Amino acid sequence: MPQPQGKIWLVGAGPGEPGLITVRGLSVLSRADVVLYDALAHPALLEACPQAEQRNVGKRYGEDSAAQDAIIEQMIALGRAGKRVVRLKGGDPLMFARGAEEALALADAGVRFEIVPGVSSPVATSAYAGISLTHRELSSSVTFITGSDRAGKDWSPESWKKLATATDTICILMGMRRIREITQAIIDGGRAPSTPAAVIHWGARPEQRVVTASLERIAEAAAEAGLKNPSIILVGEVVTLREKLSWYDSRPLSGKRVVLPRAVDQARDTAAALRERGAIPVILPMIEITAPPDT
Amino acid sequence: MPQPQGKIWLVGAGPGEPGLITVRGLSVLSRADVVLYDALAHPALLEACPQAEQRNVGKRYGEDSAAQDAIIEQMIALGRAGKRVVRLKGGDPLMFARGAEEALALADAGVRFEIVPGVSSPVATSAYAGISLTHRELSSSVTFITGSDRAGKDWSPESWKKLATATDTICILMGMRRIREITQAIIDGGRAPSTPAAVIHWGARPEQRVVTASLERIAEAAAEAGLKNPSIILVGEVVTLREKLSWYDSRPLSGKRVVLPRAVDQARDTAAALRERGAIPVILPMIEITAPPDT
Repeated sequence: MPQPQGKIWLVGAGPGEPGLITVRGLSVLSRADVVLYDALAHPALLEACPQAEQRNVGKRYGEDSAAQDAIIEQMIALGRAGKRVVRLKGGDPLMFARGAEEALALADAGVRFEIVPGVSSPVATSAYAGISLTHRELSSSVTFITGSDRAGKDWSPESWKKLATATDTICILMGMRRIREITQAIIDGGRAPSTPAAVIHWGARPEQRVVTASLERIAEAAAEAGLKNPSIILVGEVVTLREKLSWYDSRPLSGKRVVLPRAVDQARDTAAALRERGAIPVILPMIEITAPPDT
Repeated sequence: MPQPQGKIWLVGAGPGEPGLITVRGLSVLSRADVVLYDALAHPALLEACPQAEQRNVGKRYGEDSAAQDAIIEQMIALGRAGKRVVRLKGGDPLMFARGAEEALALADAGVRFEIVPGVSSPVATSAYAGISLTHRELSSSVTFITGSDRAGKDWSPESWKKLATATDTICILMGMRRIREITQAIIDGGRAPSTPAAVIHWGARPEQRVVTASLERIAEAAAEAGLKNPSIILVGEVVTLREKLSWYDSRPLSGKRVVLPRAVDQARDTAAALRERGAIPVILPMIEITAPPDT
């Protein structure tokens, strides 16, 4: 009898908040044999697939992991063994997430795959900071760009100068290590030093922190606030929208940690309600309420 | 007693396929008192909120609707009347969807709101066409730009020339009416006429059609194929990925219409299974299977 054919779903988990995974993503997750997840996967998503073998493949935000080849090898081997595999990625699997490389390797190996798009992290991060990347009067274009080098290329200010005035909103991922050079190059390229800018750290999570300043001041302001990766850097007039549109930071329990001394199963609903109000639930399974052994 | 406070959720429905709405989006939809939806909302999403009053506010793709003010008025009035309202938008509510304007009006009116990000249409559309907008070797930046004019501005080729070589991948929304001028301006701006390009029509839907050609040929190729809006135009080396990554077009029932002569409730599972395999289910509730009146 022929081996049953396996399949790999490259699933975008969305950013931070677990409710931002798609219905389809959650559905394939809950039916997977094996789930390969990165370091930043939300625990609630792993709780949603108790049936699956869960492998932490250990990639961290922005890490140029030598483990990439090993991940691809695992995916191919599992696919060939007839497994239904979810490769769970933060944000969208094809937006700066190396999903294309993984899909190409699967195609070359003849392993079936499907892409399940996710909410792109910088889009959601901006929304949770009260910033719309486009706006009818303020921005009719937005560029997403990585601040880290492309393979084998040295960083050069020329590409940033070119981009400076070619697009209305600039959204930089993984740019914190070079934020001074990048913002300076954008100014050198002709963008006004007074252009509004923002750094959003841990976007769309209860830990989210946002710093705004002018383009010429933002590197310093972010450093003063101690913001590092994972952060996105935004440049453009749309940053001013935050003054009115900030909704996530202003929820009643925003950023507060609330300890729930309950078993995980029994704390789930309360944890969800707390998250809804902006809190960070911390579940400590110290006590468990069960039926008495003898009624 | 004070009026209960209403709230508006600006929810991104994602593109085309109804499973691409987020878990959180579906959750607020299923608890809403009123749902305001646009012309392209998927019927399956409206079926998911039978409890809600459903109002078609009639905006069509790319339409510069004079109805925008009326939509905002409805949202404010419903919020003030204490209603839980979902404003359902295609794609992401803040990416070229005028969600920012609606949120600003709510903020000014003192009506509470929340943004529920969605899978961005051009991102998913590209993924469903087998094209990754970024790729470690081919593209470390992507620009999303609308091909229609900003309010009060005449179209000018200058901004397109500037963008031509400032970004790796260019993704143009609502650009079909000006595709010739836009692609010519990008070539005039210094992008090679042989740069791979694509037009994707009705992305992430069973009706999806994709045409690829060089930048200098794409306007003609799209015209020959009869592609109009809603389409996106892609320019960049990443278009070549489609040769290997196309997965959606190659499913067993791709693009085929299958008639289900069943009541809506009874056809739902079969319709979902057909969609999974690429078909377009057409439910005709001609017969209904029920229990006999007298057993």
